[in-house]
Amino acid sequence: MEKRIIIEKVKPEINEGLFPVKRIVGEKLKVVSHIYCDGHDLISAQLAYKIKSEKKWNFISMSHRGNDEWEAEFVIEKEQGSAECRIKGLCPSDGQGYVYFVRAWIDNFKTHKRALAKKAEAGQDISVEMDMILPFIKNKSLAKGNKEAVEIKKFLDSLILAETDKEKLRIILNPKLSILMSICPETDSLVKYPKILEVLVERKRAAFSSWYEMFPRSCGEGKKHGTFKDCEKLLPYISDMGFDVIYLPPIHPIGVSNRKGKNNSVVCRPSDPGSPWAIGLARGGPARRSSSGGPARRSSSGGHKSVHPELGNLADFKNFVKAAKKFGIEIALDLAYQCSPDHPYIKEHPDWFKWRSDKTIQYAENPPKKYEDIVPINFDTKDSKALRAELKSVADFWIKAGIKIFRVDNPHTKPFGFWKWLIKEIRSKNPDVIFLAEAFTKPKPMYMLAKAGFTQSYTYFTWRNTKKEITDYMEELTKTEAAEFFRPNFWPNTPDILSETFQKNGRPAFVNRFILAATLSSNYGIYGPAYELCADKPLVEGKEEYLDSDKYEIKDWDRNKEGNISDLIKRVNLIRKENTAFQKTGNIEFIETDNEMIIAYLKMSEDKKNSIITAVNLDCVFKQSAWINVPLEKLGIEYGIIYTVKDLLTGAEYRWNSSRNYVELDPQAIGAHILSLKIGI
Amino acid sequence: MEKRIIIEKVKPEINEGLFPVKRIVGEKLKVVSHIYCDGHDLISAQLAYKIKSEKKWNFISMSHRGNDEWEAEFVIEKEQGSAECRIKGLCPSDGQGYVYFVRAWIDNFKTHKRALAKKAEAGQDISVEMDMILPFIKNKSLAKGNKEAVEIKKFLDSLILAETDKEKLRIILNPKLSILMSICPETDSLVKYPKILEVLVERKRAAFSSWYEMFPRSCGEGKKHGTFKDCEKLLPYISDMGFDVIYLPPIHPIGVSNRKGKNNSVVCRPSDPGSPWAIGLARGGPARRSSSGGPARRSSSGGHKSVHPELGNLADFKNFVKAAKKFGIEIALDLAYQCSPDHPYIKEHPDWFKWRSDKTIQYAENPPKKYEDIVPINFDTKDSKALRAELKSVADFWIKAGIKIFRVDNPHTKPFGFWKWLIKEIRSKNPDVIFLAEAFTKPKPMYMLAKAGFTQSYTYFTWRNTKKEITDYMEELTKTEAAEFFRPNFWPNTPDILSETFQKNGRPAFVNRFILAATLSSNYGIYGPAYELCADKPLVEGKEEYLDSDKYEIKDWDRNKEGNISDLIKRVNLIRKENTAFQKTGNIEFIETDNEMIIAYLKMSEDKKNSIITAVNLDCVFKQSAWINVPLEKLGIEYGIIYTVKDLLTGAEYRWNSSRNYVELDPQAIGAHILSLKIGI
Repeated sequence: MEKRIIIEKVKPEINEGLFPVKRIVGEKLKVVSHIYCDGHDLISAQLAYKIKSEKKWNFISMSHRGNDEWEAEFVIEKEQGSAECRIKGLCPSDGQGYVYFVRAWIDNFKTHKRALAKKAEAGQDISVEMDMILPFIKNKSLAKGNKEAVEIKKFLDSLILAETDKEKLRIILNPKLSILMSICPETDSLVKYPKILEVLVERKRAAFSSWYEMFPRSCGEGKKHGTFKDCEKLLPYISDMGFDVIYLPPIHPIGVSNRKGKNNSVVCRPSDPGSPWAIGLARGGPARRSSSGGPARRSSSGGHKSVHPELGNLADFKNFVKAAKKFGIEIALDLAYQCSPDHPYIKEHPDWFKWRSDKTIQYAENPPKKYEDIVPINFDTKDSKALRAELKSVADFWIKAGIKIFRVDNPHTKPFGFWKWLIKEIRSKNPDVIFLAEAFTKPKPMYMLAKAGFTQSYTYFTWRNTKKEITDYMEELTKTEAAEFFRPNFWPNTPDILSETFQKNGRPAFVNRFILAATLSSNYGIYGPAYELCADKPLVEGKEEYLDSDKYEIKDWDRNKEGNISDLIKRVNLIRKENTAFQKTGNIEFIETDNEMIIAYLKMSEDKKNSIITAVNLDCVFKQSAWINVPLEKLGIEYGIIYTVKDLLTGAEYRWNSSRNYVELDPQAIGAHILSLKIGI
Repeated sequence: MEKRIIIEKVKPEINEGLFPVKRIVGEKLKVVSHIYCDGHDLISAQLAYKIKSEKKWNFISMSHRGNDEWEAEFVIEKEQGSAECRIKGLCPSDGQGYVYFVRAWIDNFKTHKRALAKKAEAGQDISVEMDMILPFIKNKSLAKGNKEAVEIKKFLDSLILAETDKEKLRIILNPKLSILMSICPETDSLVKYPKILEVLVERKRAAFSSWYEMFPRSCGEGKKHGTFKDCEKLLPYISDMGFDVIYLPPIHPIGVSNRKGKNNSVVCRPSDPGSPWAIGLARGGPARRSSSGGPARRSSSGGHKSVHPELGNLADFKNFVKAAKKFGIEIALDLAYQCSPDHPYIKEHPDWFKWRSDKTIQYAENPPKKYEDIVPINFDTKDSKALRAELKSVADFWIKAGIKIFRVDNPHTKPFGFWKWLIKEIRSKNPDVIFLAEAFTKPKPMYMLAKAGFTQSYTYFTWRNTKKEITDYMEELTKTEAAEFFRPNFWPNTPDILSETFQKNGRPAFVNRFILAATLSSNYGIYGPAYELCADKPLVEGKEEYLDSDKYEIKDWDRNKEGNISDLIKRVNLIRKENTAFQKTGNIEFIETDNEMIIAYLKMSEDKKNSIITAVNLDCVFKQSAWINVPLEKLGIEYGIIYTVKDLLTGAEYRWNSSRNYVELDPQAIGAHILSLKIGI
């Protein structure tokens, strides 16, 4: 039989189903599709879904929302199939998450029922119609191994016993029968969407995390090279501020060939520690002494599986990871697949690199700029199988050491296919590993990395300052297809980026941008202590590089420096923890304000119990005021009711009335409100 | 080697390439795609296309328009492969039109050239880079059977002979070399878009046509049943108005079983001719006499391949078709795949129909409404192969009789798959056949029929009256994906639809809606002579049915009736013929006006030589005026220049200055301007 139903435009569906959508446990997946057929027959449609590694499909009825558009949703209940299945290796290697598709059929029962009802209503004879609807009911009552069949049979029996058309009609119009009938599809006309689509399910921290980046080298006392033991001592400070991820730049031996000096200088003094991203052997580097004054420790082999000797050894590192765990903090390591010219790979695997016609190695360059302390890996190598295996073993090594979060350096300079493979391979054994892409690249590659498997990504937030810029960007991230696969992680600064606003406006800018990052996006991070200490000096005026960044030197930070914003950070992180509205990014709705300098937005938890309006003054110098339009209807507030809003930053309470309300924000105090709505109080 | 390039979002692409886009000869196809790779290497991309039935692909360079979006376009030059190929059966059966795809590769020459230029500019040594770029040039100079290779070889030779780096650089930077190098892809990194997409190419009338629907029965003298000979006599009248398609409702014998009477009455008098859409045997119907007073003619077999005896015979019909051709007019027949209860199919093929449990045939119904003179075909029949063959033979029969245009009745009540098959089958032998879908159905099935192969479609224009309604609808039709596969045909009236505005406003509404239909859409049609005579009486007030429609009776139209709008129709059709701007639909751009009652739009020919602004007063009662904003920049008019616009409807000329100009439109005269821009005069 010619299939008459069209199922098209199933959403979400990323690149024709080539990539999964992303969810965490507890989130919903709403699926919509255009479903229709010729003629006037009625259709029934179902959304089919299951945990990937389980056998049984769940079918739920889709509802027609008009214009041939159907929808249904389900809640993600598990990250993956049962542990048993996983341990026994019964799950497919890409067994994490769910799969779904859509199916529909021409519902003869529903179609005939509609005709029956209309004819009966018009007083027409319905005896023939009554005869004609019976086979459809009978047919389903006979379906074997179907628990609905038994129930349908009961209806059928009472239909056969019924004496009048009126009585029969009453039975046929019983909504319970319709529900039973709509559960089993009619196979003659059944059409299945030809693709099975995927949901990648990750753990909660994938969607809600607060990152703190720090250089362990700057965690020691004074200008002395910091160690993992020093890092441990800082855990109470970091935990008190409310962070749950500490991200460390590469902790491996730093190469000495072409090592960069202070402020990225090509002249390197013997005391300069170099950039941690120049991963090498570190032999022959500046003298290194153990903190106990003993002989210099040497990295056993160097490279990506070693620890920079001055930071301590692997055991020290593991201890730090364990200590952090006690504070509820995870350590994120940097996966920086690149080498210093003295990295052991270069001798061991010369064919993993590009060589110039003069037999010299091809270091990184962006002509005419040269980065002579860094050698990129040549992923086009013929030895790519071995290369991939080795790179994967790096991640595996650190996972074994207790790491479950990687921040990946410059992923856009390596093939998308490599990441897709690597992340899938790692997740097949360790589904709880999180990957943050440092994808400071063009929009399409940035999104493609997210599609290829990265959990979170750096974004353009760093350069979105005006109300229009922020609003447009958030709309793109949360209201387009991107919301299905791209989880933004908002960083107001990084060791490489000190935006202009910080250089110009100092502390108020640090407050302002922090509140924006932490309330716009459920994932955010800062590079500290530069951030909380409001370090605002650029290397060159008008450029974004930091002066005296600890990327190239050991810093002696005064964490108690006057004017620091640690207390504000602590307060905002606490607000984030206590208010589920801030634990998602997609739930944002911008609110109209009559001042271009004041941006305002509502975030509401899925259960609608937690509603917060954040208003931020984007002017870091002058006080600004605005009338903002509270979306009463969405909040379930009746017009005319007086309600209380409480500023979670200051504790101040305001009595508001109607939708139009006044805010006044002074950047010299705190240029923002985070207003919790206490409705009915 | 791992393929590093991503090619995605190729547009146009309908339903993932399942359906073709549509063009006519002379139109362009612009293809855009997102193309990018990891890292900083440069890419080259090509659009590949060919006539489907030819072997050779054409490759043209795509240009990067920013943000990793690439584009290229080509002109459709032929409808299909050579006649030889077609006649010899060398073409595939779906050989009409073009195919296209996109490919891209990492362009090592371009990448190295960029580095060379930058390093040279910065005064760095380039001798090693010069060495490294050579193999790429050499490689392409060796490509066999490639005419570019010879040219590249010449550059290579001069490079080898060159003595200084400066001289070498000059050769490498020669743009001619870059063009040559970019013609041949680098196979190592070459990625092809995995789908080959299609262009259905149809003849010119697919895109530009003016339809006139008439009932031949009403073409006779007085109330006498009209014949094809009578139709012939009307050709000068119709041709003078400027129409190029005459569409006849079904010309087959009309069934007598349950025949409908005047005004769709269930009571049929012996003299009532019935609805032509109730195709049957016509035996035992009302007495029929030949116009010469001889014995009644009988249809030989009845059904869809017969001619209704009172209209004449097949020879008469063929003569009419030939006569019309002399006037440049094509006859469109109605393909109405349905039967009167006395249609021969019912006895010959009872299994092509649905039967009720009381052994009666299932006639058409929309409960509680019944259409007892019509029996729908059951496309779900097990005998569908024979059914399809027979239905195709109906079309083939009339094609053989000289018909190349079909208006298809109610196509949305038959399976999409049937149409896709039928249209493809017919086009494989007769690529010049045009199908107009009478798809008065929901938006998605309407579009799906166009995707399945229909050339043109009826639309919702009939019910779009306000400025916003018209603008939104035109934007949907011309600025979304629909423009690629859906060709609207705007009908202000049909025998079934007399819109409210005509009933309320009479003649001014007929003028107004005619000008809108004929200037908004390059394909349009009217049901005449009801339209040009401004027949405005509904069967029931507030409903859309005509009173005394010739769908159910023979009408005696007074074609010279006072107040008729034949002259206006003639003028507008002439304007359409003389101004290529009106021969497309997609080239519309709406113009801002400051009065909601006045709609204005610009249409411009592709060569920009023909630009027309149409302004219509949507108020059919009162004079309205507005300031309209002429898009000077788009028209290439300098600000401050005085230019002349000529109203092609009245011949009046106006001197305009700047973008803001005044129009005043009186519906009691002609409520519209069709303004030709004479720039520089």
